[in-house]
Formats: sequence, structure tokens, C-alpha cells
Amino acid sequence: MKENKYDEPAFFEKYGQMYRSKEGLAGAGEWETLQSLLPELLGKEMLDLGCGYGWHCIYAAEHGAAQVLGVDISERMLAVAREKTKFSQVIYRKSAMEDLEFQESSFDLVFSSLALHYVESFEKLAGNVWKWLRPGGDFIFSVEHPLFTAEGSQDWLRDEEGNIRCFPVDNYFFSGKREACFLGETVVKYHRTLTDYLEGLVRQGFSLAHVAEPRPPERMLAFPGMKDELRRPMMLLVAAKK
Amino acid sequence: MKENKYDEPAFFEKYGQMYRSKEGLAGAGEWETLQSLLPELLGKEMLDLGCGYGWHCIYAAEHGAAQVLGVDISERMLAVAREKTKFSQVIYRKSAMEDLEFQESSFDLVFSSLALHYVESFEKLAGNVWKWLRPGGDFIFSVEHPLFTAEGSQDWLRDEEGNIRCFPVDNYFFSGKREACFLGETVVKYHRTLTDYLEGLVRQGFSLAHVAEPRPPERMLAFPGMKDELRRPMMLLVAAKK
Repeated sequence: MKENKYDEPAFFEKYGQMYRSKEGLAGAGEWETLQSLLPELLGKEMLDLGCGYGWHCIYAAEHGAAQVLGVDISERMLAVAREKTKFSQVIYRKSAMEDLEFQESSFDLVFSSLALHYVESFEKLAGNVWKWLRPGGDFIFSVEHPLFTAEGSQDWLRDEEGNIRCFPVDNYFFSGKREACFLGETVVKYHRTLTDYLEGLVRQGFSLAHVAEPRPPERMLAFPGMKDELRRPMMLLVAAKK
Repeated sequence: MKENKYDEPAFFEKYGQMYRSKEGLAGAGEWETLQSLLPELLGKEMLDLGCGYGWHCIYAAEHGAAQVLGVDISERMLAVAREKTKFSQVIYRKSAMEDLEFQESSFDLVFSSLALHYVESFEKLAGNVWKWLRPGGDFIFSVEHPLFTAEGSQDWLRDEEGNIRCFPVDNYFFSGKREACFLGETVVKYHRTLTDYLEGLVRQGFSLAHVAEPRPPERMLAFPGMKDELRRPMMLLVAAKK
């Protein structure tokens, strides 16, 4: 299923109010960790799957990428991305990432930030990425953590006073569709186990270079609710090499 | 801290009553997955850290390993292992795994089943394993899953009727000591994040070959409580290569 939630005006509006939407990379708690996984970008050809506002495409261009293709299913997101981007080597294309087709060995880096959990078949996508990458190329992505997506609600379990009791895990080995509440709207995501992601890559032929769970950086710990993010992992970052 | 719980008579007795203690490898729900990660054993020199009853040492000898050293802190466990083992190429030694010293490049395979979460410093142990392995050698281990060790109780959260509500996750990024109840006794274990394990290996120089979460096999699903093990991951299996 290829949901285009970000083109719904109310959702798009609310997404735009998030700290990370306003502040870009500096507003993303995982950025330092994600950045540390990126290869040298100079002269590289990069594909960004689910590029959203284009923050990572712009970053790549700023760091010398030769060609960057940002793909997103949402026209509204791409309109913002185009407005923000001042680099002619960055091009945006509207498409579901499942529908993309490229020649073999088209890119040096395939990147994706918090978008692959919207894709039903990771296996199929990883197979395409393998094909599209040049030998030695990098596949680097962040997704919602399997622990975070397993139960479905993506919300803390609270006591009667509203205090956090724990984060609930359930249905872990039942990979598949989940309907979670995000920005007050129901959003369809796909839960996968850690094994689904990592062994899926290994089966395809990738070698696993890094697997990291970002924790909130010091600079953001004073933000409301941010200290609670030390109680559960919300994201999983993976760097794999062809 | 090097706790020797298994030499306490009551604990040792209760451990012996577990299905996996009686049935050996066939009684362990993770065995098929773990087995699939093992390299060809013919002619190999293997070290088993926390060998317990010696099931894996015996398996290695049965499959042609040239030399197997099983190490455990518990004399009682080793007594059982020695009694079970009919292969002269298997030797057992009583030691905390933190105290071991070997020449560089002494082993082709360092193996550990459900023991490394008793070790305070994984970083230090991984450094030793790196040194002890020959180039191209394998480090293969199972540990309790970071999701399972995070909160500390290692028990389901239940409703008033005693039904499972979920498995609780908390304190995830606070790596360190946990006191869990196992077989009615308090046992000290060390929680580590997935990142602690995997990036700890990568920092040491290891390449990550496999990361897998075993799910209960069909043959055991009818056992009491076993279907619930599909609701949370309890173990993490890792295969790394020097």
C-alpha cells in the first residue's frame, strides 16, 4: 500500500509544526549519529528515498555530491523541498519509492530517512537498492525501531495519574501492517523485526557496516519529553555496503 | 562482578529441571537458528565461553572439531559436562571468562551461549576474543535480547486477571547492572543496547555476518507459554568475523 498522508492538508500542516520540520537537520535528535554513518559525499551520485523537505539532499549537495535525486510521494513535500534547494545538482521527483526504476549501478549512495517503515516489502526494496547501487556503494537508512513499531500504538503505557509506566512491546514476531497515531492522524506503517531488516540485507548480499540506535543529544535533553527517549529506542540506523 | 550462581546447590538443582537442561540442544528453542550460524567445524579449534553442561562442546566434537576448550565458572556445571562428554579432544577448565588469557590467534571459533550478559564489560571481552581468534575466525554468540534485559524484571506486565498485557521496556539507554529473577533466585545480569553489542564488535574490527532473533520453532509451540514468545524477542544471536 502506498499511502500519501503528507499530501493531506491537515497532516501536512501539522507536520510542518514539528521542531524537526522547522529546524531541519539540527532539529533531529538522530542527526549526529546518522551523519557519522555517511560516507564521503564529494563527487557522489545519491538517491534519497522519501526525501520530504529535502534536508538531506541539500546537505549532500553542500558537501560536494555530484548529483542528488530526491524522491517523495508527496507533491506538497516536494514543493517545499524545491523552494528550499538552491543547488542545480539536486533534482526532485514525485513517485512512490516502490515504483522507481533505474539502470543497474546508477548510484554511489542510496539514502533514506524515516521512510522505509511505510514500505510493505523491505525485501523487494532492498533488492532494488542492491541493483541500483554501484559495487562498493552504500545503503544508509533510518527507520522506526522494531521495538517501537511492534505493539502498534507507538505510545507509552501510563498509570492512572498519567505517568509513564513503561513502553509496551507486543506482537514482535508478527511482522506487517500497523495503524499508529501520528500527529493526531491514523497512519499505516509496517512493523518488521530487527532480523527482517538485517538478515534481509545480508540475504541480498549487503555487508553490515553499522547498526546504531541514536540517543537524544545533550543539546536536546531539556526539550519536553526528550529525557523519556532514554527509556526506549525509537530509531534504528543501518549502514550497509554493496 | 563474577557471580557464580550455578554453584549454589538450590539454583543448580532448579536449573537442572529446565527442559533445555534435560533435553540439551533439542530442548533449546533457539538451536536451529544458532546452528545455522555455525561455520564448518571440521578440524577447527574452538573456545566455548560459559559452556555449562557442555552441549555445544560435544556438538562441535561430533562434527569434527579438532580441539574444544569449554570454560565455565561453575564447578558443578563442569562436573556434569565432564560426565556427559566422551571425546578426548574436549577439555574443560574452571574460570571466569574475564580471567582467561591465551596467546594471540589461538582459536578458529569463539562461541558463547547465553553467558555474555553476565559479563560486565563486553568491550573488554570482545577485545580479548579479537586477539584470541585467528584471522578469518568466527565469534558466534547468543545473549538475552537488549529488549528483554532493558527494564530489569524480565517479566510480562499483566492485568488484574493475570493475563499478559505486554512486555515492558524501560531504561533502555541506561546500560549496566540489572537484578532479575531467574528460577526463583535473584541473578545479576548486565543490560546492553543493541548498539553496545554490534558497534562494540565493529569498533574492535569485527565484520557483522549475521544478526538474528530466534523465534520458537513449530515443534515447541504447544509447550506452555511458548506461543507468548512470539510476542517479544528474548534472545539475540550474532555472528561476527575477524
